[in-house]
Amino acid sequence: MGFGCCHYQSVGEGCDSAFTMDASRVTFGRGCLSEVGERARALGMRRVALFSDAGVARLPHFEKVRASLLAAGLEVGVFTDVRVEPTDRSFLEAVRFAADLRPDGYVSLGGGSVIDTCKAANLYATWPSDFLTYVNAPVGEGRPVPGPLKPHIACPTTSGTGSEVTGITIFDLLSLGAKTGIASHALRPTEALVDPDCTATLPGEVVAASGLDVLSHALESYTARPYVRRPAPPRPSLRPMSQGANPWSDLGCREALRLMGLYLERGVKDAGDHEAREQLMWAATLAGIAFGNAGVHAPHGMAYAVAGLVREFRPTGYPQDEPLVPHGMAVILNAPSVFRYTAEESPERHLEAATWLGADARGAGPKDAGEVLADKLIRIMRAVGMPNGLGGVGYTEADVAALTEGAFPQQRLLQNAPREMSRPVLSGLFQQALGYW
Amino acid sequence: MGFGCCHYQSVGEGCDSAFTMDASRVTFGRGCLSEVGERARALGMRRVALFSDAGVARLPHFEKVRASLLAAGLEVGVFTDVRVEPTDRSFLEAVRFAADLRPDGYVSLGGGSVIDTCKAANLYATWPSDFLTYVNAPVGEGRPVPGPLKPHIACPTTSGTGSEVTGITIFDLLSLGAKTGIASHALRPTEALVDPDCTATLPGEVVAASGLDVLSHALESYTARPYVRRPAPPRPSLRPMSQGANPWSDLGCREALRLMGLYLERGVKDAGDHEAREQLMWAATLAGIAFGNAGVHAPHGMAYAVAGLVREFRPTGYPQDEPLVPHGMAVILNAPSVFRYTAEESPERHLEAATWLGADARGAGPKDAGEVLADKLIRIMRAVGMPNGLGGVGYTEADVAALTEGAFPQQRLLQNAPREMSRPVLSGLFQQALGYW
Repeated sequence: MGFGCCHYQSVGEGCDSAFTMDASRVTFGRGCLSEVGERARALGMRRVALFSDAGVARLPHFEKVRASLLAAGLEVGVFTDVRVEPTDRSFLEAVRFAADLRPDGYVSLGGGSVIDTCKAANLYATWPSDFLTYVNAPVGEGRPVPGPLKPHIACPTTSGTGSEVTGITIFDLLSLGAKTGIASHALRPTEALVDPDCTATLPGEVVAASGLDVLSHALESYTARPYVRRPAPPRPSLRPMSQGANPWSDLGCREALRLMGLYLERGVKDAGDHEAREQLMWAATLAGIAFGNAGVHAPHGMAYAVAGLVREFRPTGYPQDEPLVPHGMAVILNAPSVFRYTAEESPERHLEAATWLGADARGAGPKDAGEVLADKLIRIMRAVGMPNGLGGVGYTEADVAALTEGAFPQQRLLQNAPREMSRPVLSGLFQQALGYW
Repeated sequence: MGFGCCHYQSVGEGCDSAFTMDASRVTFGRGCLSEVGERARALGMRRVALFSDAGVARLPHFEKVRASLLAAGLEVGVFTDVRVEPTDRSFLEAVRFAADLRPDGYVSLGGGSVIDTCKAANLYATWPSDFLTYVNAPVGEGRPVPGPLKPHIACPTTSGTGSEVTGITIFDLLSLGAKTGIASHALRPTEALVDPDCTATLPGEVVAASGLDVLSHALESYTARPYVRRPAPPRPSLRPMSQGANPWSDLGCREALRLMGLYLERGVKDAGDHEAREQLMWAATLAGIAFGNAGVHAPHGMAYAVAGLVREFRPTGYPQDEPLVPHGMAVILNAPSVFRYTAEESPERHLEAATWLGADARGAGPKDAGEVLADKLIRIMRAVGMPNGLGGVGYTEADVAALTEGAFPQQRLLQNAPREMSRPVLSGLFQQALGYW
């Protein structure tokens, strides 16, 4: 049990010597959605903006949440026009709704798209501004949010995103055709209500893709550049949320990896396996807390290009009306390629991570670390029905240049990687990710 | 790696099916005390009440904190009359200071006594009331704190208490001659700055006793009655902070136990072993977060009687002006006896805990669990110079009845134990704790 012992002992020249741990209040457990009304009232809410999407709004959880809010004597305005893979345009519709309703608090029920849209609505309705003001630089101005937002209770319905415990919201900026986001402590929901009952009806394909997103949150946070190698901020308040791997995020990562190794395949294959689905929801929460305090890196940065440049791919288990590479799938398809490359920087961490996932790493040395981890990932991907690399969702060698140009601007993520992520490196990684078996 | 898998799968009749995770913002790292000024200003402080004790006020950390606050342009009022083992009388002196100063925020620098005194001053200066109003029932009225307190940044200088991340304050009620406390989410400090440099000058005896307090925070939280066996609260806001063992607190407990097994002896024996002392500080933070969300049980409940009835014992490394059983020592002296008894309820958890501490549990079965854990604890206690049980601090069989009467009123703690803690049981546990070798 000697893991992780010396990873943080020596602080680099001019680098940070401390890390900051932030977390929302989280309530976890079957049936806890029914707590939402009393919790909203306790946060001082009187008029609530309830965000969801059209699919979730047809499910019994939605009615449960609405009923709980009404039973607590609250006025409820409902917005269900959330777009899956939100855009600046869909965000602005949500902002207009919120600006008209003038709520004193927010509740979101859904996957990452719903929670992220609710964060944006809360931000721009509370602190109106040009849209690009708070958007991450260099795409936006990256200005700090001027103060606290209205209270927000986030209720995730998928075991994936982690958005309920992070200060990040992600969207497509239509004018650039690129994913970007807003990152601020102020965006982190005040509370999260994580009810595993919400995942009981998810299609196996959605559990697979969102679970692999979780798995990669944990792997990327665990292998991210350690905080003692990140330049110290000029002021403590400027320490980024993507502060790099640290002993706090490590704890959540290890447990999330262990649970993924034990339960992902079970939860994908059998919607009636309540124990597995509950543990996957718990792993998603832990990995969310971890990456919210460490940051992800290359597999996520590359995923934005993979999702954005999709041509024809339409996965089963998802709406068929437009081509889509689900977020978790877009992430994990890059992962074996990336970890083969990053293992050289911290082979023992990569081996440990493989072991937490359940790999047998006996006899493996530092030089085998990347291969051991990649091999374990590929086995898991095959077991839960992922496509065979980027080729499996329609990309070819001819797309590598465009994928590279799409990923390279994600510097916030790429700089959190443990090794350099130049354009030539990214091209090589996309190339290696085209097919795995 | 199959630990803890089924501990929470079945919810008892009428019991709670969810748990709530709360944590302060925590910054951890060498030198992070220098962040206090900017952080205080970011929390809106203009006039700060700085709490410490006479001993700490002579150390360079104190000047560092004061200078950081002044450099941030804040007005600073200083209170250093904190009493070690505070009382209602010493709390009220602090309240008067705060009521006169009328600060808009608090900073505490010291051990548990300092942080707890600061919490009380903040509470009663913000929400003035008869002293017993908020004190835990049945000693006090146990009324809820009416609203939020002023922001409080807690900076621990010992690797023990965990008070910087909990909503608990403990004191001696002089009229009863008994320890009691106040427990409320509102008391949890807004932020904690945990700077391991503060522990570099601590005497080894203080590191030993405070470290064993941490070790017992982790062991008690890990073995506490699981939350799924605690009656459900009538409303979610009434879910107690001592909600019982849960998957979140388990994570911090396991890591704290692992670190204690690796570093306690090193940190006690060599003040120059910076790595060990840093890891002990980190373990204290993790165990604090864990017990703040799970609760401790019998060893702590019994410790109040052990500390309160002390006659002549004066430990080395501590002030010699009055008899004292340091808190961590008073706790750990009960621990082997308690865990021999509680192991029957969850033998696999007790074995696991021993293993995280570094015990070799190969070949041990459920019936051996209590003995394996007790044996490991006794080895650690001997290695760091603890007295031989309650006899070692002056108690005899003749004191068992008084100790039992002193401990029995600690029902908030005793009901969090995994097995019944009646008077006869407590008497038996005190009896068995008189000597271990």
